[in-house]
Amino acid sequence: MSVSESIAKTARAAGNILKTLSDEERSSILYKIHDGLKANAASIEAANKLDLEQAKSTNLSDSLVKRLDLFKGDKFETMLQGIVDVANLQDPVGKVNFAREIDENLTLYQITAPVGVLLVIFESRPEVIANITALSIKSGNAAILKGGKESLNTFKEMSRIVNDVVEQNEKTTHVPVGAVQLIETREDVSDLLQQDEYIDLVIPRGSNALVRQIKSSTKIPVLGHADGICSIYVDESADIGKAKRILVDAKTNYPAGCNAVETLLINPKLQHWWEVLNSLIENGVTLHVSKEVKKQYKEHNSTSDHIVDLDESKDFDKEFLSLDIAVAFVESTEAAVLHINTHSSKHTDAIVTENSENAEYFLKAVDSSSVYWNASTRFADGFRYGFGTEVGISTSKIHARGPVGLDGLVTYQYQLRGNGQIASDYLGAGGKKAFVHKDLDVKSISI
Amino acid sequence: MSVSESIAKTARAAGNILKTLSDEERSSILYKIHDGLKANAASIEAANKLDLEQAKSTNLSDSLVKRLDLFKGDKFETMLQGIVDVANLQDPVGKVNFAREIDENLTLYQITAPVGVLLVIFESRPEVIANITALSIKSGNAAILKGGKESLNTFKEMSRIVNDVVEQNEKTTHVPVGAVQLIETREDVSDLLQQDEYIDLVIPRGSNALVRQIKSSTKIPVLGHADGICSIYVDESADIGKAKRILVDAKTNYPAGCNAVETLLINPKLQHWWEVLNSLIENGVTLHVSKEVKKQYKEHNSTSDHIVDLDESKDFDKEFLSLDIAVAFVESTEAAVLHINTHSSKHTDAIVTENSENAEYFLKAVDSSSVYWNASTRFADGFRYGFGTEVGISTSKIHARGPVGLDGLVTYQYQLRGNGQIASDYLGAGGKKAFVHKDLDVKSISI
Repeated sequence: MSVSESIAKTARAAGNILKTLSDEERSSILYKIHDGLKANAASIEAANKLDLEQAKSTNLSDSLVKRLDLFKGDKFETMLQGIVDVANLQDPVGKVNFAREIDENLTLYQITAPVGVLLVIFESRPEVIANITALSIKSGNAAILKGGKESLNTFKEMSRIVNDVVEQNEKTTHVPVGAVQLIETREDVSDLLQQDEYIDLVIPRGSNALVRQIKSSTKIPVLGHADGICSIYVDESADIGKAKRILVDAKTNYPAGCNAVETLLINPKLQHWWEVLNSLIENGVTLHVSKEVKKQYKEHNSTSDHIVDLDESKDFDKEFLSLDIAVAFVESTEAAVLHINTHSSKHTDAIVTENSENAEYFLKAVDSSSVYWNASTRFADGFRYGFGTEVGISTSKIHARGPVGLDGLVTYQYQLRGNGQIASDYLGAGGKKAFVHKDLDVKSISI
Repeated sequence: MSVSESIAKTARAAGNILKTLSDEERSSILYKIHDGLKANAASIEAANKLDLEQAKSTNLSDSLVKRLDLFKGDKFETMLQGIVDVANLQDPVGKVNFAREIDENLTLYQITAPVGVLLVIFESRPEVIANITALSIKSGNAAILKGGKESLNTFKEMSRIVNDVVEQNEKTTHVPVGAVQLIETREDVSDLLQQDEYIDLVIPRGSNALVRQIKSSTKIPVLGHADGICSIYVDESADIGKAKRILVDAKTNYPAGCNAVETLLINPKLQHWWEVLNSLIENGVTLHVSKEVKKQYKEHNSTSDHIVDLDESKDFDKEFLSLDIAVAFVESTEAAVLHINTHSSKHTDAIVTENSENAEYFLKAVDSSSVYWNASTRFADGFRYGFGTEVGISTSKIHARGPVGLDGLVTYQYQLRGNGQIASDYLGAGGKKAFVHKDLDVKSISI
């Protein structure tokens, strides 16, 4: 058996145990992990310093070094608090989605259950270890974690502490030692991505390149997104004040965010449409405009600073992640929808309009995980959606879509509770009994 | 552009239109397809006769020929009625799963939406064309259908009629011509399985071999199951009468069904456990028993007809699909669960017991899509679950699990309806406003 197969099998076995534990048992180990990490802050900080020194000596970019630093500001305390916050969330497992009487004393339940085994691959930010450990155990899943090589020392020290805590408390909390496994080398990852018999879901947390590479090298479902190519359509019936505010927020509040806007589609029939462009320019945005936009813009404005030519073959499919935006005219809501359904990465797209008919059409026709009317695309976020925590943002079309909370780490099972019933007594399988099929009120169920 | 890419792109474009249509529009074309097929029964029968003649001349097995015959008994009428039944189901699209006030005049909705584009691959049964056409259009999905070569003439004739009906009614129902595309050659399928940019879900309906081959040759999610290896654990506290009835039903009611039992795990502490085996033997079942079972069985029974040796390395992972069953002892519910979580295909597994503690542990610990207490595994079926229709039975762990109704062909989207709100006004993105995050009663929502 290969090392990867052995890791994956251990995780599967641990997942099978986790699945049977109560919320209390799963949460109690999280409080203990919180305490263990807190008590060992000094050794974690020493390990983190090593990573930071190595990072500086290898000329890692300033922004990457900043991400590595676990003790910058209140980052470490926030990480610890995050574990407790997840432990205190409502139990995502064992919720009855629906209950149905199939016949007398034969009742069908659809009940939430853990997915099973998660493989989580992340880059430099070491606090993800604590976050993912908490999310996985809370939702009854076993997790295999792989951190980036830049944070290897921090990662090793934190995983040592987590493993010690789990081991010391296995007898009382029943959370098994294999519940969280931490692996170090890149080779292990490519092997693990082949273990589709044991691993149920891969969650990459990192750059577009990482996500794209993982998606192309595994048959295991991937929860995440590579690109966040978000568009905003400013309709001819837009309130121009709203359009300006929304565009400036969506582009400049955090340009590196996956929910930042990358394409502005504007209807030239909107009065003073160029004011939207001027607002963006005033906020330091460079506009990549189509020929037609450039021509008409010049008719109304004397300067064209911050205006460059659009490369139509590339810029509509590009996540700038900077103060740049592609700008083109569309003549109707239908044309905007067509553009978006062709170029969007199915993350988040918005319409700005006071015309409710156009808005409803847009909301119904756009095929993205989040679709907005008169709001900034920046709202696409688990915390803003009120999910308590965020596992990631998914652009897949099945399983979890959009910002994903703890619910994205559970699936469901059917339970049928009977009294010896057999199919051949019923119509369709040789018998004469009819099915009752009466839905029961979920709120009155206690199982 | 390859032929497959062109087919897939056409489907995507059609799906984008279907997504915007009302339930009335989607259902109305189904009534018209029903009428068209009914009016052309004679030409369909003639085409079906051709397929049957060819099948007989190529020595196709009797059971396959039987499946090909669309006019045997009331099969054709049942097929036609099925289209109307699906049209009359509740609209699966546009249901509000939850609604949440994010802030004043900023409301988040989670709403069901079509998956997009389905690729459905099926074997000999030609009535699947009508069934899948109805399911796809009702749920707002575009479908690409590929039938088996044995039913090619029937398939061609039915697809000609469906296409004509869609084309003639495009102006009134708005259902686009590309909503259902029918393809003929096997080469097209392998190409289509690579079109993961345009196709969202593959649904194979046919033999284990077909499903396994498709799963291994695409990155598109597959809804279905290869094996149905179902187990029943008869606990030491089982009611032996219930155990006998359940086992005989689960094994003999329809041995070729994916929900038939393949493995009997029996606790030797159960008084007169061998009576369960005798019931199976009396009903013509051959038992593949472990050495220990054989030894102890002989102590209580004089003959051992219908008893053969178990091949432990193979028989626990085998779907017999015949009047055969693997039989082994397990000493506890825990041991039964361990066996099942190791060997089961995650379809349906059951415990027979009067001990509720053992039952609850089993229900919680077994990792299959359906888990039963004191009921036959044969209940695992969309119609028996009361889903109105069945798309298939899925053993995947994410998206739809177990018997899948029309709900398995929809996903969800988030809609955010605002009044110009921007993220930077709120806490966490630079502002001072707090989020409200108040859940709204879904029943009072009308959007």
